[in-house]
Amino acid sequence: MSNIREIAERAGVSIATVSRYLNGSGYVSEKTKIKIQKEIEKAGYTPNALARAIFTKNSRTIALMIPNITNPFFNQMVTAIEDYANKIGYSLFLYNTGDSREKEKECLEVIKSYRVSGIIASRSQCKEEYSEINIPVVSFENHISSSIATVSSDNYNGGKMAFDHLYDRGCRNMLHIKGPRNFEATELRCKGFVDAANKKGIKVDIVEFETDFQVQILEEYLKRIENIKKYDGIFVFNDIAAAVVMKHLKGIGISIPHQVQLIGFDDSFIGELLYPSLTTIRQPIKEIGTLLIELLIKQINREKVEIKDYLLETKLIKRESTL
Amino acid sequence: MSNIREIAERAGVSIATVSRYLNGSGYVSEKTKIKIQKEIEKAGYTPNALARAIFTKNSRTIALMIPNITNPFFNQMVTAIEDYANKIGYSLFLYNTGDSREKEKECLEVIKSYRVSGIIASRSQCKEEYSEINIPVVSFENHISSSIATVSSDNYNGGKMAFDHLYDRGCRNMLHIKGPRNFEATELRCKGFVDAANKKGIKVDIVEFETDFQVQILEEYLKRIENIKKYDGIFVFNDIAAAVVMKHLKGIGISIPHQVQLIGFDDSFIGELLYPSLTTIRQPIKEIGTLLIELLIKQINREKVEIKDYLLETKLIKRESTL
Repeated sequence: MSNIREIAERAGVSIATVSRYLNGSGYVSEKTKIKIQKEIEKAGYTPNALARAIFTKNSRTIALMIPNITNPFFNQMVTAIEDYANKIGYSLFLYNTGDSREKEKECLEVIKSYRVSGIIASRSQCKEEYSEINIPVVSFENHISSSIATVSSDNYNGGKMAFDHLYDRGCRNMLHIKGPRNFEATELRCKGFVDAANKKGIKVDIVEFETDFQVQILEEYLKRIENIKKYDGIFVFNDIAAAVVMKHLKGIGISIPHQVQLIGFDDSFIGELLYPSLTTIRQPIKEIGTLLIELLIKQINREKVEIKDYLLETKLIKRESTL
Repeated sequence: MSNIREIAERAGVSIATVSRYLNGSGYVSEKTKIKIQKEIEKAGYTPNALARAIFTKNSRTIALMIPNITNPFFNQMVTAIEDYANKIGYSLFLYNTGDSREKEKECLEVIKSYRVSGIIASRSQCKEEYSEINIPVVSFENHISSSIATVSSDNYNGGKMAFDHLYDRGCRNMLHIKGPRNFEATELRCKGFVDAANKKGIKVDIVEFETDFQVQILEEYLKRIENIKKYDGIFVFNDIAAAVVMKHLKGIGISIPHQVQLIGFDDSFIGELLYPSLTTIRQPIKEIGTLLIELLIKQINREKVEIKDYLLETKLIKRESTL
């Protein structure tokens, strides 16, 4: 049975009074406070976040949905969000969606039943499923609806930067290895790259990979690219995939950056571990995580939040894989 | 106010009856069931996991504490646990402890207030703090108390395997780069390595690193190792640190495996991305995650669980960084 109820009974007050006391909201007389506190101490009662949640409608929990936590980009984002949540006394429910719409829908059902205070969706594959949810939501990268704010890096500009850097370093025969089509971010990276190339009157080749993270699958895709040696510059949609490309090129005897220059995207920790270290377009992972949770908490606290695209600046991180 | 209470009032039954109905536990007459169901439908009431938790004392939530989710080993472990939890309808609270005892204590306080069904502690730095917790707990790697089961890889044997492999491949002048002293696992890896060396009458050098994951700190430590070139075989306590060692060696012109052979520990995905790819001692990450949650769920369901050390086999994964 509910501990709050027991406490209320023993103290001879209503459940609502105990709830007001626990939450420090509304009037409770000093005398009653002492009575309740005594019963709480007698019962060895730990403040019950669950009970509090039912009374205040704020469980101080956030559901974080990400495609795959083994992707270094996402686990660095989770770390930033968890750090922030922790500091303000919120706990984090974690759900891997695997970029599957079905899985995301299932997660949403579970999340609703837990009455979380808010939801951070990343690279969501759902749209209308969010329309019936009366919980604050913010979205990373993919757009869900006109009532949900979206945070992302400036992927378009990042793609442009990648082209401009390779061009500046002398590349004229370039390939873009593009990520899956259902991710808005990879589309924008590609578009930025191609638009910048067009401006210079350069034609670039594009191949599309259907996975963003499974190493073996990435390797299979690479084997199918005809005559990869003919390119002098390759822009890859994320750092993990770039690491696989680097390994593939070295394996067929191509020297980086002297024969082929290589540039990734994300600036996840993996780029620094590679040899040569990876030039990349930095997404401000920590800032993204922090902004997502800040916007969410504001909504939970019923503060005004502008529903729009929040674009965070990308930046070229020059390392050894380009000249 | 509580939805359950509203439903109970409208249906003209007690809260306890609604609770019995929602949980399918205890007797509720067919007539009452229909009445409650009708009110639930009228109210558009989502089964409230929080309310259910208070009544049944099983919130179907698990708190997972890990040192740092950006460590590929731990994020692969989280994935295994999340997958399993998801399949059986449990949700996961995630807490990064950063291997800090203080942070872990704070997390425990929060966790208690959420009335989670069970706790998975990893590389716990706390002991007595767990004694007052009336929630099932299982531990990964570090021992907490005689009433808590511990799951880990057979780290001692893994250390032995690492030595035997380097010895077989001709190394006679070996270095072990050891992880932080407060981790039982790194102590055992070291002991296994040294014991195997003693058996062959070989003296090995040992240097201890105070971090297991911060890349920049690892690089600083490496610079301080005198004359690293004199070694023909190096065993590193985990794959990430081995990746940093590999980079360092290549940076000073040492060829791997021809001048120095290198072996890591974990078999996290990073080993395959390196060039040369990393020989390592595999911890069965998925099996570890699965066993942890299986043991926990059994305890939550009040099934008998033997409180002991569960040691999972390690295995040599031969790749290109050894001959």
